[in-house]
Amino acid sequence: MTERRFVLGDIPGVLWLPEDPGGQVPLVLLAHGGGQHTRSPGLLAQARHLAGDHGFAVAAIDAPGHGDRRRPGLIDALAAVLRESAVTGEPPGPGIAQVNAGLAAQAVHDWRATLDALPSLGWAGGPVGFWGLSLGSSIGVPLTAAEPRITAAVLGLAGREALAEAARRVTVPVRFLVQWHDRLLPRESALALFDAFASLEKSLHANPGDHHEVPESEVDSAARFLARHLRRSA
Amino acid sequence: MTERRFVLGDIPGVLWLPEDPGGQVPLVLLAHGGGQHTRSPGLLAQARHLAGDHGFAVAAIDAPGHGDRRRPGLIDALAAVLRESAVTGEPPGPGIAQVNAGLAAQAVHDWRATLDALPSLGWAGGPVGFWGLSLGSSIGVPLTAAEPRITAAVLGLAGREALAEAARRVTVPVRFLVQWHDRLLPRESALALFDAFASLEKSLHANPGDHHEVPESEVDSAARFLARHLRRSA
Repeated sequence: MTERRFVLGDIPGVLWLPEDPGGQVPLVLLAHGGGQHTRSPGLLAQARHLAGDHGFAVAAIDAPGHGDRRRPGLIDALAAVLRESAVTGEPPGPGIAQVNAGLAAQAVHDWRATLDALPSLGWAGGPVGFWGLSLGSSIGVPLTAAEPRITAAVLGLAGREALAEAARRVTVPVRFLVQWHDRLLPRESALALFDAFASLEKSLHANPGDHHEVPESEVDSAARFLARHLRRSA
Repeated sequence: MTERRFVLGDIPGVLWLPEDPGGQVPLVLLAHGGGQHTRSPGLLAQARHLAGDHGFAVAAIDAPGHGDRRRPGLIDALAAVLRESAVTGEPPGPGIAQVNAGLAAQAVHDWRATLDALPSLGWAGGPVGFWGLSLGSSIGVPLTAAEPRITAAVLGLAGREALAEAARRVTVPVRFLVQWHDRLLPRESALALFDAFASLEKSLHANPGDHHEVPESEVDSAARFLARHLRRSA
């Protein structure tokens, strides 16, 4: 597996390629969660797992306001949501979703530009899937709705706020992850977002635990879901 | 694979054994849905798949009032529920669950007697899992709560009615299947039953479609779930 850092305009990114793919290879666009970036250990481990163990090409970029694109304004906005949540006792997820929505328009543009550029960076082409939870889904839902090259998506840890309208334009197969005891996100909001996807083929997988406690078995299962669909559309 | 019919008291059953297991082999107790029985094509196909492709021993019995144990009273009771549902426009699932609950106490006794007898019918022993949806879960939830030999269960297409109390005594790993557009069963009722299981390890998998439209991919995935847990407890 090779790991190549690139900068596209002001967007820092990484492209992982499996050893000697010998032609076209399915690509996973891997979007990180809130507060993470393309050097976060969790993202690196997952990218290496998808490329090394599953033979995908994988691309990641820093989301607006994250990693090398830090902006104090974003941190201030999130801090305000968390203070508000502490006062009201309501989960902060819907407020975080509104902040994330402010990043998503730029992020959708960034991902489409990245997808245009990846062939010149060494990816030989092939079917494209998307993987992003939490902030990754705030970006991934409108991106998957807008970008016809994406033919399957792993989404989740996100709710209806700011996303239901775009979800109604998503028609590709979707795996949607819910944490049953998510303290950031009301359960009803997550179920309503799953409901909104127009996809004929969509599966919700819910497991006990808080926002960050997605079990490893779901990560493996989601990788098999992408492999199945990207191979089918190859 | 061998397929052996037996009768235990007044309980007709079938035991499938994989070719030459050479010692202990994990057993799946396979409970059929409402209106089905141990000669139904769907049950036979699934049992042969579990034994032939996954190497499980599989046992099935006719539920009370089903197959060779038909009772006109049961059909009358279900017909009354369906007439009531047609009049009120409410889904019939909760009413069917009450009828099923009337069978479950007997069925739990039947399954425990079957489990006692299976070694004398050719099963060499091993870890035990349960698989039953709809009526199979009306029986499977109280059975799994009562029977310590069962160490993993595939359940679903069932709601809180008559089952929530037993679910709170289920502690083994559970895979729980929900059909998102189930016209028999209110979605809220199914989600509440998933919520009730005391199991630390439980996953809800929801897919679009009506009661009888569980996708094939979930059947394969549930078989892998059982294989993983029964091998672990072996």
